[in-house]
Amino acid sequence: MSSTRRLDVLANEWVIFATSRQNRMYKPPVDLCPLCPLSVTEPQFTEIPTPAFQVAVFENRFPSLSTIETYEQHHLPEPYQVSPAYGHCEVIVYSDNHELTFSDLTLERIQLVIHAWIDRTLDLESDSRVSYVMPFENKGELVGTTLSHPHGQIYAYPDIPPAVAVRLTAAKEFLASTGNCLQCTILTAENVEKQRMVATNSTWIAFVPFAPRFPFEVHVVPLRHVPSLTDLSELEIRELSQLLSKVTKGYDNLWGFSLPYVMAIHQRPSNDFDWREPCHLRIEFKPFHRSADKVKFLAGSELAAGAFVVDVLPEEAAAQLLEAMR
Amino acid sequence: MSSTRRLDVLANEWVIFATSRQNRMYKPPVDLCPLCPLSVTEPQFTEIPTPAFQVAVFENRFPSLSTIETYEQHHLPEPYQVSPAYGHCEVIVYSDNHELTFSDLTLERIQLVIHAWIDRTLDLESDSRVSYVMPFENKGELVGTTLSHPHGQIYAYPDIPPAVAVRLTAAKEFLASTGNCLQCTILTAENVEKQRMVATNSTWIAFVPFAPRFPFEVHVVPLRHVPSLTDLSELEIRELSQLLSKVTKGYDNLWGFSLPYVMAIHQRPSNDFDWREPCHLRIEFKPFHRSADKVKFLAGSELAAGAFVVDVLPEEAAAQLLEAMR
Repeated sequence: MSSTRRLDVLANEWVIFATSRQNRMYKPPVDLCPLCPLSVTEPQFTEIPTPAFQVAVFENRFPSLSTIETYEQHHLPEPYQVSPAYGHCEVIVYSDNHELTFSDLTLERIQLVIHAWIDRTLDLESDSRVSYVMPFENKGELVGTTLSHPHGQIYAYPDIPPAVAVRLTAAKEFLASTGNCLQCTILTAENVEKQRMVATNSTWIAFVPFAPRFPFEVHVVPLRHVPSLTDLSELEIRELSQLLSKVTKGYDNLWGFSLPYVMAIHQRPSNDFDWREPCHLRIEFKPFHRSADKVKFLAGSELAAGAFVVDVLPEEAAAQLLEAMR
Repeated sequence: MSSTRRLDVLANEWVIFATSRQNRMYKPPVDLCPLCPLSVTEPQFTEIPTPAFQVAVFENRFPSLSTIETYEQHHLPEPYQVSPAYGHCEVIVYSDNHELTFSDLTLERIQLVIHAWIDRTLDLESDSRVSYVMPFENKGELVGTTLSHPHGQIYAYPDIPPAVAVRLTAAKEFLASTGNCLQCTILTAENVEKQRMVATNSTWIAFVPFAPRFPFEVHVVPLRHVPSLTDLSELEIRELSQLLSKVTKGYDNLWGFSLPYVMAIHQRPSNDFDWREPCHLRIEFKPFHRSADKVKFLAGSELAAGAFVVDVLPEEAAAQLLEAMR
């Protein structure tokens, strides 16, 4: 079934309507897991009918965006607008082992995942109707994951999504007013202050940002001005695997349980090389917990006003994370 | 303890840091409820030391924003910025009965709540450093409510918060390009289409918006072009109480349990009468459920990209709500 987009005219932002998703699999038992290989499950259940695999990517069977564009055009009164929700939604499975999480993967496997992100970005960008490719991972029931087998997703949007547009505009304005890349300037500041840094190596830095939205948020950023995953060198890929492993293991050590988070990769818009100057690749981890037993909920101030309230100072969160990463 | 704001330079938006909130009361048992009157609880526990009350408003003891402005000014490297998180955070208690919810209130009591919103808006606006007053309610554990006694909140922000600014800009642009109020144009469209309308009377309309972010979202909007709560007539206040009661009762009937939601009141910015033309009062209800047993989580696409994915069509949600309101 195709998806549509409707313009939320009050905010001038598109909202995606994908009604077929209401019927997607919801926390199936292990023996019905669609991400397990043939060695574990029956052919009729799995999406990956092969005896074993390392990393697998396939189209989401319940996609939010769709390349099928059949939809009823009916008359709409002003000011309403509908358009097809064109795009691609892919699932990236990190392992054929149902019990693992990202933090359990070997560095070699994480490097394979990064290569898959790069290959898929290149391929999805080759669709001229795609404007923005975002690999991400929703980890844990707390963030709504409906399948527990370790996996992420890759969305290819038909336009630059609203929250990305806000950030691109800020980066462009900073470049215009200072002549510098905003993210490069942030890296310089973090290297001076050091109190929010949680991990680093010769090509990457991981730190709690100066003004996070979630208390234990971590950004993983390349030291070199790299606009996109597709610009990474082999050394940068190897060293990124180290930091991703370190950050995710640190999260699990923090309070002794597998920490739920949303991870998202922010890169330059597709097919638009004008963004090479303002855009600097950034991988964001947003865990929802504000302490071992308390969750940061998005409620009135965040959802209605967009004003985030955080009750842990980033420097304190960084100190706790640093301890958890030892 | 005072609060501070830090600029999230990546988005050019302020984030509030209120570390004293980490110690706020978390789901206290009934006999320790700080919102119960003296007839129920001991003097040392309650915030409202009176034997009984109808509606009570007081300053939040664990505020996100604060009128106390002592904070350490230390040198910050570029591009970072800190400022005091000036503002007011009030709690509005709807009843001295611990067991009620908004949907249990009488119409007379709801009218008293509306009058309290108006009085507090007028008073908070009289602080020239306040730019935006937003009454809201976080209802239910699912949206993070830490006290179950029926209550809402009122935040008075020092600037126009980011999500409000986006909506004000859209309204201003629509007015500039068409000469019409955006919300008035929406009301005309809803009156033509009628398929998303769930309740109406001589001065108000309640409907599922054309492009909601949460499947069972409802907007309650005055038919007259009213920019603020403070502009409502007595008839409009009485009729608003009817629709608020109907909508909240309908939510509880929908699946037979007390439905969690975030309710927020969007009105014109304070102390700025230039907003009378573009601004049209709107009360938004956002329930988190997408079905009786499933929750709409905000995850990768929503949090990182700002692209909301909804899996119930608004017309279908409206039909279900209409049935629940019979």
